[in-house]
Amino acid sequence: MEQLRKIRAGDVRTASRLIRNLEEDLPEAKTAIMRIFPHTGRAHVVGITGAPGAGKSTLVDALIASFRKKEKTVGVLCVDPTSPFTGGAILGDRLRMQRHAEDPGVFIRSLATRGALGGLSKAVGDAVHVMDVMGKDLILAETVGTGQQEVEIINHSHTVVVVLVPGMGDEIQTIKAGIMEIADIFVINKADRNGADQLANELASMLNMVPEFPGGWRPPVLRIGNCFDPVPFGESMEELSTAIIGHHRRLVETDLLGDRMKRKTMVEIHEALRDAILEPILKEMTQSGEMEEIAGRLLRKETDPYTIAGEVARRHLK
Amino acid sequence: MEQLRKIRAGDVRTASRLIRNLEEDLPEAKTAIMRIFPHTGRAHVVGITGAPGAGKSTLVDALIASFRKKEKTVGVLCVDPTSPFTGGAILGDRLRMQRHAEDPGVFIRSLATRGALGGLSKAVGDAVHVMDVMGKDLILAETVGTGQQEVEIINHSHTVVVVLVPGMGDEIQTIKAGIMEIADIFVINKADRNGADQLANELASMLNMVPEFPGGWRPPVLRIGNCFDPVPFGESMEELSTAIIGHHRRLVETDLLGDRMKRKTMVEIHEALRDAILEPILKEMTQSGEMEEIAGRLLRKETDPYTIAGEVARRHLK
Repeated sequence: MEQLRKIRAGDVRTASRLIRNLEEDLPEAKTAIMRIFPHTGRAHVVGITGAPGAGKSTLVDALIASFRKKEKTVGVLCVDPTSPFTGGAILGDRLRMQRHAEDPGVFIRSLATRGALGGLSKAVGDAVHVMDVMGKDLILAETVGTGQQEVEIINHSHTVVVVLVPGMGDEIQTIKAGIMEIADIFVINKADRNGADQLANELASMLNMVPEFPGGWRPPVLRIGNCFDPVPFGESMEELSTAIIGHHRRLVETDLLGDRMKRKTMVEIHEALRDAILEPILKEMTQSGEMEEIAGRLLRKETDPYTIAGEVARRHLK
Repeated sequence: MEQLRKIRAGDVRTASRLIRNLEEDLPEAKTAIMRIFPHTGRAHVVGITGAPGAGKSTLVDALIASFRKKEKTVGVLCVDPTSPFTGGAILGDRLRMQRHAEDPGVFIRSLATRGALGGLSKAVGDAVHVMDVMGKDLILAETVGTGQQEVEIINHSHTVVVVLVPGMGDEIQTIKAGIMEIADIFVINKADRNGADQLANELASMLNMVPEFPGGWRPPVLRIGNCFDPVPFGESMEELSTAIIGHHRRLVETDLLGDRMKRKTMVEIHEALRDAILEPILKEMTQSGEMEEIAGRLLRKETDPYTIAGEVARRHLK
């Protein structure tokens, strides 16, 4: 309760410790989230995604400044879907965001998890809850890529910003196919480069093919130029932060916020079920050495994975 | 049995139908894999990964030709981790591979799955088994990105080729962190572009920091130029296909093949367990309307996901 009180008062150390415990998947973190959950639901959660090299971190850094000018408090979650082998989060150029570290209206954390698929997305959802209860008006969750796992992470958001850069080659079609249905705002970053017009045209023709947008929100396509060109860059960041707030207002006005909240909730249920049902079985099998023994039998082709899984299921399920 | 016999005889229609059934996650596909599994383990499975726009499809297309010259038969699996909303695989520029369609020594399929996280990786593992039993010497599995899910897909491989392009920006550090430990061969594609030397140097310094490589295999860094420059392109493809075969030989000679096979097997066990334990519970909860009802309670903040998951677990687990 003391922990909840401190987090609600915005205490950075308590919140940080809890997020670290979430990352490590400690049992006390789960208990804390159970207490925190009823107090969540106030913050506007913004997912920011795009391929590596699209300049998302620079954008997030500038967005923080733009929201602060609008007197909004900001939480930032940098999500690193790193390899299950390394486990660690690479801070890299995110260090530059540290210029906001002294500002009590800004709270920035990186997140990575070891362990099972799905673990990262669960930790993201829970870390968002922590920042929500801290009272942050906006929470920016930055993630790499547009694979299925990233989509799950993005599904914890109310507003999704997709960052593209000109000249990514043929496979942009593949990316677009995956993101068209989740993007609320498109950003063409590094728009001073060759190919920006072509990219904008391609996006426009894809959007023109959509017969009707939910809530009448046609995802805007914003161009952001070189960040070393401060005046136009600052203006386009202002435009982006306004679009993000505008999208949230539209969700509220058109009653679509409920749909987003539901999508977010379904992702959370799935993750919690995986955590409560599958993980303990995997853990027990690993600790008892059964997993090792099964691997041996499969390698010797004495059985197949489906037969084994059926046996384990019969043993554990009622 | 008839199905197994036909697939072992290389029958394209039977194999294609089974792969389509795997994609749809039909029960008869699972039964087929149970029969097929004991006959697997002959093929050399090569995972090819890299960011969108890295030119992997062009590379795979040229690799097929190079392996055919070496009189190897080839299976190709193009993996599309598309959004769970769209579900469909985008063929895009992969169409160009169709020039090999008439060659009975080549078998190309695209794979995408709707549905749950982990479903795609399972389908990949099983489709690889089908191509293996068809008698393909090499199976190339091409996937987009280096997120955790892609790593799981890549873990079905014996040899992992990571494709990079010059000028991907700051976040290349993030990509590298995830792939350094899984890459067996690095390819710098589009090496005629600016920044190729810098990328090669960065890779070399990262590799120089590794104190010892398992089996003494230091991942080579190969440069591949413009594909419209046929002679040097053909030569570097020859070099790549030789490196791939060389890596497999090294795995056999140094007894490291067992480790790779074990990694592959562990991924398969995890996926089969998810499929046998968690999926049926999710399905039942969805069909009975319970999932919907739980979502309502969570949205009204009457409870939290962990409490719900604990209740469901107690109800289903022995």
